Amino acid sequence: MKNFLDLALAGPDLVAELVALAGRLQRRPEPDALRGKVLGLLFMNPSLRTLASFQSGMARLGGSSFVISPGSSWNLEYLPDIPMTGAAAEHVREAIPVLASYADALGVRAFAGGQDLAEDLSEPVFSAIEGLCSVPLINMESAVNHPCQALADWKTMDDERIPASNGRFVLSWASHPKPLPLAVPAAAAHMAAMRGMDVTVLRPKGFELPPEVMQRIDDAASRSGGSITETDDRGQAMQGAHVLYAKSWSATSVYGDAEADQDLRAGLTGWTIDSDWFENAHSESIFMHCLPVRREVVVTGDVLEGPRSRVIRQARNRMYAQMAVLHRLLVDKGD
Amino acid sequence: MKNFLDLALAGPDLVAELVALAGRLQRRPEPDALRGKVLGLLFMNPSLRTLASFQSGMARLGGSSFVISPGSSWNLEYLPDIPMTGAAAEHVREAIPVLASYADALGVRAFAGGQDLAEDLSEPVFSAIEGLCSVPLINMESAVNHPCQALADWKTMDDERIPASNGRFVLSWASHPKPLPLAVPAAAAHMAAMRGMDVTVLRPKGFELPPEVMQRIDDAASRSGGSITETDDRGQAMQGAHVLYAKSWSATSVYGDAEADQDLRAGLTGWTIDSDWFENAHSESIFMHCLPVRREVVVTGDVLEGPRSRVIRQARNRMYAQMAVLHRLLVDKGD
Amino acid sequence: MKNFLDLALAGPDLVAELVALAGRLQRRPEPDALRGKVLGLLFMNPSLRTLASFQSGMARLGGSSFVISPGSSWNLEYLPDIPMTGAAAEHVREAIPVLASYADALGVRAFAGGQDLAEDLSEPVFSAIEGLCSVPLINMESAVNHPCQALADWKTMDDERIPASNGRFVLSWASHPKPLPLAVPAAAAHMAAMRGMDVTVLRPKGFELPPEVMQRIDDAASRSGGSITETDDRGQAMQGAHVLYAKSWSATSVYGDAEADQDLRAGLTGWTIDSDWFENAHSESIFMHCLPVRREVVVTGDVLEGPRSRVIRQARNRMYAQMAVLHRLLVDKGD
Repeated sequence: MKNFLDLALAGPDLVAELVALAGRLQRRPEPDALRGKVLGLLFMNPSLRTLASFQSGMARLGGSSFVISPGSSWNLEYLPDIPMTGAAAEHVREAIPVLASYADALGVRAFAGGQDLAEDLSEPVFSAIEGLCSVPLINMESAVNHPCQALADWKTMDDERIPASNGRFVLSWASHPKPLPLAVPAAAAHMAAMRGMDVTVLRPKGFELPPEVMQRIDDAASRSGGSITETDDRGQAMQGAHVLYAKSWSATSVYGDAEADQDLRAGLTGWTIDSDWFENAHSESIFMHCLPVRREVVVTGDVLEGPRSRVIRQARNRMYAQMAVLHRLLVDKGD
Repeated sequence: MKNFLDLALAGPDLVAELVALAGRLQRRPEPDALRGKVLGLLFMNPSLRTLASFQSGMARLGGSSFVISPGSSWNLEYLPDIPMTGAAAEHVREAIPVLASYADALGVRAFAGGQDLAEDLSEPVFSAIEGLCSVPLINMESAVNHPCQALADWKTMDDERIPASNGRFVLSWASHPKPLPLAVPAAAAHMAAMRGMDVTVLRPKGFELPPEVMQRIDDAASRSGGSITETDDRGQAMQGAHVLYAKSWSATSVYGDAEADQDLRAGLTGWTIDSDWFENAHSESIFMHCLPVRREVVVTGDVLEGPRSRVIRQARNRMYAQMAVLHRLLVDKGD
Repeated sequence: MKNFLDLALAGPDLVAELVALAGRLQRRPEPDALRGKVLGLLFMNPSLRTLASFQSGMARLGGSSFVISPGSSWNLEYLPDIPMTGAAAEHVREAIPVLASYADALGVRAFAGGQDLAEDLSEPVFSAIEGLCSVPLINMESAVNHPCQALADWKTMDDERIPASNGRFVLSWASHPKPLPLAVPAAAAHMAAMRGMDVTVLRPKGFELPPEVMQRIDDAASRSGGSITETDDRGQAMQGAHVLYAKSWSATSVYGDAEADQDLRAGLTGWTIDSDWFENAHSESIFMHCLPVRREVVVTGDVLEGPRSRVIRQARNRMYAQMAVLHRLLVDKGD
């Protein structure tokens, strides 16, 4: 493994190895595995969990890390071939090789622009930096992907003994005051399909996952023996569900049109997840969310803190999953 | 000791042990005591001394740390049971357990809101996170407390051989352009009373410490053999004083009313501390301030840099005091 | 060496030793040289390369570091003797001794104000903090100096076997939308002169380097056997040049007058460096820039990524040069 950019690129065997390695590092710390190694973390968007879990995970393996956060006062350009007369003082074509020259591995976070769906689906920042990084590159959330979250979620379901084959995974849209990126829903549904689960995307009309994303999920399902369907019928979706994975995202039918997006979501009362949603679910069904989550908007407090919720465990598994990725990239570079 | 939230909760014996341990760590470094441990630092408000002294102190004990700073672009909610439709993207009920899952100890800073005195006295953020943190929790300054500063100040007075019993400690209000929190004055006066000193709170009318704070100080004085009085008579307060501890704070009589506060402080020329203040003080009296301090507003430059000033030593002792707290919480967990 | 503030203060012998040490640390890591040491980094202005290269370099020597970044919410005052009633909550006369008390060495970055040339030439912040720092102090870019960049550039030219004696070094002004500090051009030209090179400052009328800066460069050239000239004739300047070092800076003839500066630079099309500039240069001439650089404004993408460009190597050498400085300051304190 040379980079960690996408669960699909890693493939199911390597993902299984990473999940196993994450569990081993959780049980048996290796405090000297990355002694002397330095991890660079470039956040083009803010972070709580990702920053903390990467810095802590690197330290627990004996290594160090540094954090670069462009922000209001300076920005990085990623578009090619334009005269840089605007706000951006530096181009990723310099910034990435330079940061790579200081680090043994580099994590990058760059959210979707949220204006042009085709552009966001093309992963503009990660496409721009492809081939520029001389050290292993880690996707810490891109326009339409979040493989670290997906790996942690996979481990969480394994920890909870959620069945893979014939396991029923519902990814549900939920209320939220703002249009949010597609990265987590796309990554979560793809991960569950890759794990061999029967995936249902439950969402209101206008919030369909883009065909390109559905195709990727379908490809993963075909290879693993899983399946993928999309519906706005909650009762049907939740029937026998093992997992309800909640996440809000932008209205894809009016992507980039903030006003039309607001109009669509204004009518969607009833998409705050509460205990009623689990009526016909599997008796041991669990609730998952990547966090951060808005209480009483996305989900009620009683579900979030109730016996079904695994959100803190998911977050905790971010650290172990990322430790496994770092270990694999920097110690035992199998392939 | 499970947490470090308040000197009163620790009690005088443990405080004495911590001060002794701080001195020992200053004289005899223990560069491997916290090898492999990770400290999480959550700053809801900005910091210079606290961030630097915690990160350096942790490193000097062989451990690591990470810093999380919510700010303009995202915030943490702490109020219970409200739909999160505003600026806050995450609730402390998730954020704290998650950060705790990445850390071996967690420091939290959350200043007073400064609008509602009763609310600030109830320590709303620390009340909200109580019981949510699975690892030792450290108060890095809350609405009305600052035990790390208080512990450092205690050590500073011990280092300077300021008498405890019959030692005269004057906490004085001072000029400042803005209303400031009560955390440091409340913590400093309480600490001095707990140390057995005779404490005088010197402040203009309208700036009385709240009855709840005075009661806490009085309780500590009763147990230690110290005393507490409040006055606006400088000459009387400074008579024989061993310590002048300066700090500005909000007008408590008009708490939360910025305009009325400004009106009150406009008339208070003469509360910039200069060398005249020490005329009738003890011959070896010292000047203390927690920093940051506004020169020629709170205190003149010649006092601040003069032979009486101990402000840099106080700040330096922050590091040793906090190293003692971390050592006690993570190595020798006595009780 | 007690501090690292200026290449001129270090002198040519020590610079040669530092460059040699940087090369040795690049080839033969010393992962335990600074075990237990803590580096403080105070950034009054933002940073990518400097922060990342210092934190990574310190970690690669086994040490730790912390970062303090005053910003929009709080600032440090450096002017003496004024009542601090404005935005600054703390004075460097407290902040520097305090940070020094937490660190084994302290790096400080403080850009030029850009309003008053005489004031900027006097290095107001570094003058204000001189003598306040009880541990080794490192200039991470001041008003008119950047010795870490200069040291890295010296190493880069040595690595590239650019001749010192009779080597031709052209520092060229270049297009940019904004007036920028003089720190890098002043430091680069001085460094090249100190290395014994024939230095030409190529710039439009109105952008002359200040006489005080030229005098410093001339002094260095006199001692080393180098030379310094200034011109606006590109053909003459580039004739046989070994190095074209590009950097934009403020119009010194109208320093601090933003409008007049804009007027001057509006007429300066043609100062975007492209491959034509190298027509009469030495056949193995190289292109240098300290980064960040604006593509298609300062320089075209094909020069920046072409065979002559050494910008990534310069940036990489920042880390090794700074590791040498830290090693010298904290391990083998020769003089």
